[in-house]
Amino acid sequence: MPPRVNGERLWQRVEALAAITDPATPYTRRSFSPLHTKGRERLRAWFAEAGLTVRLDTAANLIGRRDGAEPRLPPLMAGSHSDTVPGGGRFDGIAGVLTALEAAQAIKDAGHGLRHPLEIVDFLAEEPSEYGMSCVGSRLMAGRLGRDGLNLPRADGETLAQGIRRMGGDPDRLAEAVRAPGSIAGYVELHIEQGPVLEERGLGAGVVTAIVGITRYAITVDGRADHAGATPMDMRCDALTAASHLVLKAEEEARALNRDGVYFVATIGRLTVTPNAANVVPGRVDLVVEFRSGANAAREAFIAGLRRFAEGVAAATGVKIAFERLSDAPPAICSDAVRGAIRDACAATGTGCLDMASGAGHDAMHVAAAGPMGMIFIPCRGGRSHCPEEWVEPKDLTAGAAVLLDTLLRLDASLD
Amino acid sequence: MPPRVNGERLWQRVEALAAITDPATPYTRRSFSPLHTKGRERLRAWFAEAGLTVRLDTAANLIGRRDGAEPRLPPLMAGSHSDTVPGGGRFDGIAGVLTALEAAQAIKDAGHGLRHPLEIVDFLAEEPSEYGMSCVGSRLMAGRLGRDGLNLPRADGETLAQGIRRMGGDPDRLAEAVRAPGSIAGYVELHIEQGPVLEERGLGAGVVTAIVGITRYAITVDGRADHAGATPMDMRCDALTAASHLVLKAEEEARALNRDGVYFVATIGRLTVTPNAANVVPGRVDLVVEFRSGANAAREAFIAGLRRFAEGVAAATGVKIAFERLSDAPPAICSDAVRGAIRDACAATGTGCLDMASGAGHDAMHVAAAGPMGMIFIPCRGGRSHCPEEWVEPKDLTAGAAVLLDTLLRLDASLD
Repeated sequence: MPPRVNGERLWQRVEALAAITDPATPYTRRSFSPLHTKGRERLRAWFAEAGLTVRLDTAANLIGRRDGAEPRLPPLMAGSHSDTVPGGGRFDGIAGVLTALEAAQAIKDAGHGLRHPLEIVDFLAEEPSEYGMSCVGSRLMAGRLGRDGLNLPRADGETLAQGIRRMGGDPDRLAEAVRAPGSIAGYVELHIEQGPVLEERGLGAGVVTAIVGITRYAITVDGRADHAGATPMDMRCDALTAASHLVLKAEEEARALNRDGVYFVATIGRLTVTPNAANVVPGRVDLVVEFRSGANAAREAFIAGLRRFAEGVAAATGVKIAFERLSDAPPAICSDAVRGAIRDACAATGTGCLDMASGAGHDAMHVAAAGPMGMIFIPCRGGRSHCPEEWVEPKDLTAGAAVLLDTLLRLDASLD
Repeated sequence: MPPRVNGERLWQRVEALAAITDPATPYTRRSFSPLHTKGRERLRAWFAEAGLTVRLDTAANLIGRRDGAEPRLPPLMAGSHSDTVPGGGRFDGIAGVLTALEAAQAIKDAGHGLRHPLEIVDFLAEEPSEYGMSCVGSRLMAGRLGRDGLNLPRADGETLAQGIRRMGGDPDRLAEAVRAPGSIAGYVELHIEQGPVLEERGLGAGVVTAIVGITRYAITVDGRADHAGATPMDMRCDALTAASHLVLKAEEEARALNRDGVYFVATIGRLTVTPNAANVVPGRVDLVVEFRSGANAAREAFIAGLRRFAEGVAAATGVKIAFERLSDAPPAICSDAVRGAIRDACAATGTGCLDMASGAGHDAMHVAAAGPMGMIFIPCRGGRSHCPEEWVEPKDLTAGAAVLLDTLLRLDASLD
């Protein structure tokens, strides 16, 4: 009998983890909290049921491992995270950990042997933590989190390093948690799409092509605050009308850059007006433009175009417009080998799929530093995430788990 | 010798009042504060120097009066207010009170008799007060402030009625402060322009044609908050891009309505984005559009056009846009007789002038209920007001006082 996932067992585990929540704001299981630890105790028991040897690495990543038949091979890895945002959902991250666990248990139940070691990982603190840092465990596994990050304090003064120790890690021996390039045979992460595309198209799986690079610029538009009654229209220097031109240009350019298979999104999600009074012409607008794409050329074209446009607005209206780059993370490109295995797994399990970029960041983008990486998206209702209404149909979760299991089996056969 | 204003005395009084300020945030003399009362003690002394009989009416307006030769005639009135906004200036309101006082003193100094009684008024609390009400004294004089307004509390619970009593008024006998229609022969208020037009044109006086009507609508744009990475551009319902179309349309329409001598301004000074996070597509925008004009037809055309445009935006983008009228004050039209006297006074004193609307509200718009009203604007540096940098050149203040004096003498001769 080939390994087969058990959808019922998988769903019961989703419900069991969902029950470990701050009762006042479901579904909340914040990283570094007692609830997070309580959820991990449950995970430890299930990992053991699945025949995995459980440990915390020095970065406080929870890892269940089963050895393979060929000791010289690096491990295959699958996983995600079990922490949530405040008032978050039951599937973001959790679906990746529990489907990976289900795949491991299905392999054990079938008495199936793998060539590679198999590691199932619950990464520490993927969501933005109280220390102002996200993807803590996967960054540490990639060797991407240094002293400055570890010294970040939360409100009560505890540093991230101290938090890692409290969660069972050892901040003095973090080098031991780092996986060197090439030390992972392959990593596969299943995740809810957090967008509306798969549901809209009636497809069961997204084959992620890349995790987008994310760039943010703060833009300051300085006009002149004037009396809203006494200043004629043609003598104003209105920061908000100037900013509105930028908002519309950003949308127009982002739409235009979605071509030839490139995924591009740009968002002005944050905008504040000063002094923000009904009877004062806006003197200043501060906004943040964020844009994401797997294509670096498109990202460069976007910001260059927006800067040029802003120069024109400034010249025409008299406002001053300043750009400051806040952050710029490169895209993580998914491995052709892993993508191919996922596509084959979709075909073998009868799951309709679509190549798509991941517009959100995930632990996978850091694990990619250590080996070939790929991601499987599954549909979620209305594309909604990070909210109590986040929802995945049980059949879609089971289908996703089957694709993940089949992908791991294919990678075990094909990869060295 | 005809009456002549004394520019030096006038300027010294401006400086003396400016010194009565909260030292931490010059120039602050808030209504209902001990500093306000201290300023009024100074005014009382100056009023007496000018030969005026000083009293507080039951609305706590400070009034200096000199009887005229013809007892049957109603009074000529001039004035403004001596309170300031927090961190406000040395001239807004104050220039109107002190030039009116200077005109009265010049008349006395010249031994000149008037036909009409002359009343110089420092209206109570023209600026928005801690009770959430502006133009308190002039509203009461017009009989426009009822029980609901008088019951307004400030933060410590004291009501406006109690505040009026504290300032020397009598909230039980407010009817005695009301001036019936026709009971004022004419009212003239000198005020700084609070806009840049006179300075830009190098003119000494604005002859106000009307105090604009002011209408405010709250507009709510409801879109859908989505993940800024995972939601493709063509599946968004972005409240901020929709709102940006409204911002630009409001500006375009307001510019277009400035024609055939109509003054029209529209401002979106207040705009807030929800949830206002860099990585979330804006789900909701709340904004306030304010528009001002002396022409009712233009105001009606503006809001009708904006509503039609918003329907188009909603249909094209899927957002919902709701309008709620917050306030709608009609314009106050300046009297032809007073305007004519001001223009003649400008010509007689060699002061270049320009017909212009007042985009700001003033006590004069309420006093207009009791008799013919007109206003004289004088230039202020950069059009700036309600800030410590508010500035009037001494020569411009003296010229404005001369225009006010000459206007009052002309009205005394021409009006019944």
